[in-house]
Amino acid sequence: MKHIISIKDFSKDEILNVLNIAAEFESNKHEDLLKNKILSTLFYEPSTRTRLSFESAMKQLGGNVVGFADPKASSVSKGESLSDTIRIVEGYADIIVIRHFVEGAARLAAEVSSKPVINAGDGSNQHPTQTFLDLYTILKCKGTLEDINIGFVGDLKYGRTVHSLVHALSLFKANMFFISPESLGMPPNQLEELDELGTSYQVSEKLSSFLKDLDILYVTRIQKERFPEAMDYNRVKDIYKIDRSILNSSKPELRIMHPLPRVGEIDPELDNSEQAIYFDQAKNGVVVRKALLSLLLGAV
Amino acid sequence: MKHIISIKDFSKDEILNVLNIAAEFESNKHEDLLKNKILSTLFYEPSTRTRLSFESAMKQLGGNVVGFADPKASSVSKGESLSDTIRIVEGYADIIVIRHFVEGAARLAAEVSSKPVINAGDGSNQHPTQTFLDLYTILKCKGTLEDINIGFVGDLKYGRTVHSLVHALSLFKANMFFISPESLGMPPNQLEELDELGTSYQVSEKLSSFLKDLDILYVTRIQKERFPEAMDYNRVKDIYKIDRSILNSSKPELRIMHPLPRVGEIDPELDNSEQAIYFDQAKNGVVVRKALLSLLLGAV
Amino acid sequence: MKHIISIKDFSKDEILNVLNIAAEFESNKHEDLLKNKILSTLFYEPSTRTRLSFESAMKQLGGNVVGFADPKASSVSKGESLSDTIRIVEGYADIIVIRHFVEGAARLAAEVSSKPVINAGDGSNQHPTQTFLDLYTILKCKGTLEDINIGFVGDLKYGRTVHSLVHALSLFKANMFFISPESLGMPPNQLEELDELGTSYQVSEKLSSFLKDLDILYVTRIQKERFPEAMDYNRVKDIYKIDRSILNSSKPELRIMHPLPRVGEIDPELDNSEQAIYFDQAKNGVVVRKALLSLLLGAV
Repeated sequence: MKHIISIKDFSKDEILNVLNIAAEFESNKHEDLLKNKILSTLFYEPSTRTRLSFESAMKQLGGNVVGFADPKASSVSKGESLSDTIRIVEGYADIIVIRHFVEGAARLAAEVSSKPVINAGDGSNQHPTQTFLDLYTILKCKGTLEDINIGFVGDLKYGRTVHSLVHALSLFKANMFFISPESLGMPPNQLEELDELGTSYQVSEKLSSFLKDLDILYVTRIQKERFPEAMDYNRVKDIYKIDRSILNSSKPELRIMHPLPRVGEIDPELDNSEQAIYFDQAKNGVVVRKALLSLLLGAV
Repeated sequence: MKHIISIKDFSKDEILNVLNIAAEFESNKHEDLLKNKILSTLFYEPSTRTRLSFESAMKQLGGNVVGFADPKASSVSKGESLSDTIRIVEGYADIIVIRHFVEGAARLAAEVSSKPVINAGDGSNQHPTQTFLDLYTILKCKGTLEDINIGFVGDLKYGRTVHSLVHALSLFKANMFFISPESLGMPPNQLEELDELGTSYQVSEKLSSFLKDLDILYVTRIQKERFPEAMDYNRVKDIYKIDRSILNSSKPELRIMHPLPRVGEIDPELDNSEQAIYFDQAKNGVVVRKALLSLLLGAV
Repeated sequence: MKHIISIKDFSKDEILNVLNIAAEFESNKHEDLLKNKILSTLFYEPSTRTRLSFESAMKQLGGNVVGFADPKASSVSKGESLSDTIRIVEGYADIIVIRHFVEGAARLAAEVSSKPVINAGDGSNQHPTQTFLDLYTILKCKGTLEDINIGFVGDLKYGRTVHSLVHALSLFKANMFFISPESLGMPPNQLEELDELGTSYQVSEKLSSFLKDLDILYVTRIQKERFPEAMDYNRVKDIYKIDRSILNSSKPELRIMHPLPRVGEIDPELDNSEQAIYFDQAKNGVVVRKALLSLLLGAV
C-alpha cells in the first residue's frame, strides 16, 4: 500500500488486514510509534470529524501535524495549482491527508507526490477512510463482515459514503436493502455493479418492509437542497425519521449507524439505546486512522 | 472537580487550591506531566489570548492539541448540534475547552461529555479561567486575597469578567469600588447579591473619589456599540482614560489590571510603570491553565 | 543575533554562518534540539509555504507551535494593537514568527518583544528567511556564492524577494542580469545601491540577450493587477514564459529558481528537468528555518 485513494483499490484480504491492525491499536497504544513523523492535513473543504480524528490519531502515536483547515488561509488564494502545492508540501511532511471539493483531486495528488497520500474526501466521489471505519464498526459489533443484512436509508443517490460501503460489503456477500424516495434512489450504475457481482439486494420506499430482517441500519442525511420544493423535502424528512418506534419491529440485535453529522434523521431519544452505535462509529475513526497512517509510514 | 463551567461552582478553599497548584507550576515545569494527553479546543468565537494560552499550557506540559479556531472550518456549517459535536470530539480527546457565543453552551457540553469540559467563555455569561488568572495575579502581587481594596472602572454592566471577579472576591471580604457612567453601572441583581453576602462596596461616577484607597484598579474596555450616540461614547471614553496623572493621587502600591484587549482605556505611557501589571496578568494565564488542565486530568 | 528582520542586518560572514548551520541539519536531524520550546506563528496574511515550513522545522526539532493562520480568528478583530498582541504572546512562547501586511510591522514587533522575532514577510518590504533559503539553494547546487551569473526575470519592480536576494548577492560579487518589461524594471534606488557597491549588472527587456551566460535564472510571478490593461499583461506573460526552448541556448549547468507560487511563468514540462530546482528550493526552507530557529533560541 502506497496511498489510500479509493476503497475500490483494496481486495477483501487487504481490507481485513487494515481492520486487524486497527483492532490491535485498541489494546496497544503504541505511543511513540510515529515519533518525529509529520502529517500534513490539506483541507480544502471544512470537516470536524475527519480532520480532528486524523490529527488525534497522529498525535496519539507521537507524531506531529502541520496543515490548514481552510483554503482561504493558504496559497490557494494566489492561484497555485494543486500539483504545485503537493510538490511543495511533500518537502515538509512524511505523509499527506487531503480533502478537496474536486472529484479526482486525491488521485492527482498521489500521482505527483513522493510521499503517501490519503484521500479524506474528493467531492462526491470517494472517502475511503470513512468506509474503513464503517467496516471496522460492523466487524467490532457483529464479529464478522460476512452475510450481514444491512439496510441503507435516506439519500442513496448522492451519498458517497453509501456507495463506497456498498462496494466494500459486496466483497463480503452482504444482503442489502435500499430504502429511499424514488428520486433519491441508488444510481442505476451502482445497482448494475451489484448485479454483476451477484450481490443480493432489495429496493423499497418503505423502511417497514425490511426492518425485521436487519442486522445494521445505516442512516444518511437528506439534504434540503436536493429538493426543488420545500414541501417534498418535509414529507420525506418525516417519513424516514428514525425514532424509538422502529425498535418495536426490529431484532434486538439491530444496530443503527450514521456517518454524521445528522440534522434530524435520528431522534436523540435513541442516543443512549443499545441500538445506537453512531458515536462509537465516529470514535472508531481514531484507531482505523492510526492503522492507515502506520501502514503507509511502514511502522507496522 | 470534573468540569470548570462557572466560578460560582467553587468554594473559597477550592479556589485557593487551584491558585496554589498554579504557583507550583511557576517553579516546576513538569514538562512531561500531560504526555500523550490530548486537549480539544473548540472555539466558536475568536480569541488570541485564551486559545493560545490554553494551547501553550497544554504543550508546555507535554500534551497535544486538536481543534478549531473558527467554526466556519468545522461541521457547524453543516447544521450539527453542539451536543453531537461534543459526543464526537470526546472520542478524539481527553479534555475539551470550549468558547461559544451562546450563554449556557459550556454547561450543556459538560452535561453530555464523558470527558472534562472547561468553559473558555459562553456569550456574556461566564469565563471562569479568566477569573482564576485575575485572582492569581492579585494573590501573586499582594500576597493575599483577603481585604483587598479594589476599584472596577469602565463598562460594569456588560463585562462578564467583572461580574465573575466581583463574585469571587466577595468570598474574600474585598472592599469594592464601582466607577462607571450611570448607564454602564453594575446590574442591580449583582449589587443585591453583594448586599446579601454583606460585601462592602461604594458606587461613583468619578474615579478620583476612591483613588487614594485602592490596592487594585481593574480597568475594562468600553465598547462603542453600547452607546446610541457617538458623542456620549467619546465623552465617557475620555473621562475614564487611565494615564500617568492617576499616579499623583494613588498609593505607590496601586496595581493596574485589565483583561485585555484594550483599545485606548489605558495610556501606553503606563506600560512600563511598576503599577501596570496587565501583561503579567495575561502571562499568568499559562500557569493557571496548566493547573486547571492538570487537576481535571488527575495529574496533580 | 537576537531577531531576523531584514537581510540587510547581516554581514557576509553572518550569512555564511547561517547557511553552514543549515547544511549541518541536512545530515543530523537533531530530533530533540528544541524539545519543550514553543514557537508562536502570527500570520496576519495567508501563506502555505512559509507557515508550514516554519511549523515543520520547529516540530522536526521536537518543538511545539501555537498561533493563527488567519487574523479573523484572533483578537485583531477586536481592535488590539500589534504591540499589545506581541507583549501578550511573548508570555506564551519562546520565539515569534510574524507575517504582517504592514511594512515595518516585524521591526516594531522586535522592538517590544523580549523574545526573538523572525520576520516572515512585512508587506512588500522584507522576507529575509526566503533570501536565506534562496542563498542556501544557490550554495548547495553551485558550491559557492561568489561570482555567480544570475538573471532575474519577471516583475522586478514590486518583488521583495528579488530586492532582498539582489542585496545579499551583491555582498558576494554576483554578476546580475535584469530582464523585465520597462514598466516592471528594478527601482532606480535599487540600481543606485548596486552602483555604490560596485556590483556588475546589465538590464534588458529580452531574456535571450543573456541566457548563454547564466548560472542561475531566478523567475518571479507577474501579477495581473499590476497592469491597467489586460492586453499588456497577456503580452508580457507570454514573452517571459519559461519553457524547454530556453534550454537550447543556455549552459547545461543553468539552474532555474522561483520563490513560488507560480501561475504560469514556468511551463510544467520543465519540472522534471535537471535545470528545475524550484521545488528543492522550497524544500530547503525547512533546514534553513531549523538553523534560524536554533540560532535564535541559542541551541546551536
